[in-house]
Amino acid sequence: MTSVKRVHNFNAGPSAMPVSVLEKAQADLLSFEGCGMSVMEMSHRSKEFEGIINTAEADLRELMGIPANYKVMFLQGGATLHFAMQAMNFRPAGASADYIVTGAWSKAAVKEAVKLGATNIAFSGDADKFSRLPAASELKFDPQAAYVHFCHNETIHGVEFKDEPVVPAGVPLMCDVSSDFLSGPLDVSKYAMIYAGAQKNAGPAGVVIVIVRDDMLERVPANLPVMLDYKAMAEAASLHNTPPCWSIYMCGLVFKWLKELGGLDAIYKLNQQKAKLLYDAIDGSGGYYRGHAAPAARSIMNVPFRMPSEELEEQFVKEAKKAELIGLKGHRSVGGLRASIYNAVPLESVKALVDFMAEFQKKNG
Amino acid sequence: MTSVKRVHNFNAGPSAMPVSVLEKAQADLLSFEGCGMSVMEMSHRSKEFEGIINTAEADLRELMGIPANYKVMFLQGGATLHFAMQAMNFRPAGASADYIVTGAWSKAAVKEAVKLGATNIAFSGDADKFSRLPAASELKFDPQAAYVHFCHNETIHGVEFKDEPVVPAGVPLMCDVSSDFLSGPLDVSKYAMIYAGAQKNAGPAGVVIVIVRDDMLERVPANLPVMLDYKAMAEAASLHNTPPCWSIYMCGLVFKWLKELGGLDAIYKLNQQKAKLLYDAIDGSGGYYRGHAAPAARSIMNVPFRMPSEELEEQFVKEAKKAELIGLKGHRSVGGLRASIYNAVPLESVKALVDFMAEFQKKNG
Repeated sequence: MTSVKRVHNFNAGPSAMPVSVLEKAQADLLSFEGCGMSVMEMSHRSKEFEGIINTAEADLRELMGIPANYKVMFLQGGATLHFAMQAMNFRPAGASADYIVTGAWSKAAVKEAVKLGATNIAFSGDADKFSRLPAASELKFDPQAAYVHFCHNETIHGVEFKDEPVVPAGVPLMCDVSSDFLSGPLDVSKYAMIYAGAQKNAGPAGVVIVIVRDDMLERVPANLPVMLDYKAMAEAASLHNTPPCWSIYMCGLVFKWLKELGGLDAIYKLNQQKAKLLYDAIDGSGGYYRGHAAPAARSIMNVPFRMPSEELEEQFVKEAKKAELIGLKGHRSVGGLRASIYNAVPLESVKALVDFMAEFQKKNG
Repeated sequence: MTSVKRVHNFNAGPSAMPVSVLEKAQADLLSFEGCGMSVMEMSHRSKEFEGIINTAEADLRELMGIPANYKVMFLQGGATLHFAMQAMNFRPAGASADYIVTGAWSKAAVKEAVKLGATNIAFSGDADKFSRLPAASELKFDPQAAYVHFCHNETIHGVEFKDEPVVPAGVPLMCDVSSDFLSGPLDVSKYAMIYAGAQKNAGPAGVVIVIVRDDMLERVPANLPVMLDYKAMAEAASLHNTPPCWSIYMCGLVFKWLKELGGLDAIYKLNQQKAKLLYDAIDGSGGYYRGHAAPAARSIMNVPFRMPSEELEEQFVKEAKKAELIGLKGHRSVGGLRASIYNAVPLESVKALVDFMAEFQKKNG
């Protein structure tokens, strides 16, 4: 372990990365595996980088059990660019697509989709402040929809799907899985496409991992700008132009770390343990701390909660920071507090937070 | 200086970075300036990252003397995405834009532009294998063009503009400056927009620096996908969503390095010295080495050259690699050899190359 100062990092993204991954990157920074160049300095068409990106893909395929008829791409622009690309690539002219809206990010996807064509809101949790998931009966699907889109885990509102929504037969299911990607097993075969901004569980910002079923690529219209064309990107194996090499490299190191840890079942167990510890602390506070999401919808990654007053919330964030608990302020759009407890946040950090919460309540409650 | 093995790095991009920059990044990798988090782990809305991106912008403005009425953005997608965005943002429906084609990259810009609207080729050097620049009389401009686009330095063909082409009054001039960005002074005030993929002189892959004159942003049409909308990106100061934080950080370190070195005049002198050394070696070889570009068009960054046979070229690359001279193979589209001698390639590396060339000719010539 490092002797460098490290804080308890509850950032929502970019967020904590495994210490051993950072140490490996640090050791190799000036010369990747003795090749005499940094990963940042090598051609993306070199044998060394080919090894990096191919190994990253192979490890991700193994971790998630991605079927062979899916393409894996390392692209750019954040999930927000892919909100638009999804519509450009998979909603033909004149067709409509269905969107399930359970929080800020699925709402942001709709914002891009409506600019580009017909968009049906199959459900919106807006009236309930995005605190819950839809019941099956509330989902108003269009059986002719080009696809159904949802967000697996709402980073801001802390609402997470436990199972895939059941969509009309033959309608492709697509999902922004950014903030709970790799937090546990996911049955990729249920999806036509999933995508994830890396900067939560997979690596640093600057790369989006896109996983698309082969047959979907036949639907991509001709003449899209090449960088917005999933078919072209898949055919070039993410190397049409220079990819975000360093971010891909770091993702690869994270995938190796996950494999060494025992894979997605193992990390899921640990994540459940961490989440239980924190939710129990909230639920056991006699209402001093109040979770935003309805218990059945609770995210194991992002835990937004409130306190009796905004003044106390502000004081909490301030004192937590002094105690080296970082990133606990809620998103500016909803206020309050939020602890993001991604894969790389150790159990000890959650314990430190829970202890701090109890101590704070004792002093100020 | 580091004791780690380092090679002579002539990669065309991603390419050599300054050793002192890499060492600083390495030292701070687990805890940026003692804050307890890696740059890869901190919120893009934190004070620390705000400091990183604002300082990077301020240093770049100072280095280049960017006028106050220009916006500086750190975006994604490589220059190739911006070929399309430029047309989407600045060529209104029904209007045409002019393109000067002097090599593979300006040709690639045209490929994207024609998908999106009317595109006039004001000049093409294709018939001369992109070995020269146009004379003023050869430029067939449309005085009504939405803009004129050119590529300042052709990475593959080694052809570099020394002065801006003179365009019809009132027509905005736009330029892909990716591969000679920051290689010397540039009068930004002559341009409506310049943009550069960072992975040559500015930093690692994964970030594109876009500099746009304010009045151009008024031309951006409504309802573009937000990540493709320069006006929205400028208004959000590159922070609409999570930017490529690490790549921006590295660019900032490179800007600091350039300032410490004495700025763009100083690096330009050094670049001229390096280029002269290499071109003199080519010209003094009695035709054994032959430069691709016409002398008046020669790039000081990318030096493509040929040898008497493809077999010798292959042998040269192989033996050079053994001598730790890396990245000398020409681009797959043109063959031959190419030495990229960007800002961070030290004079010693060019000397080592020139010595190797003389030795190789003596043995095999």
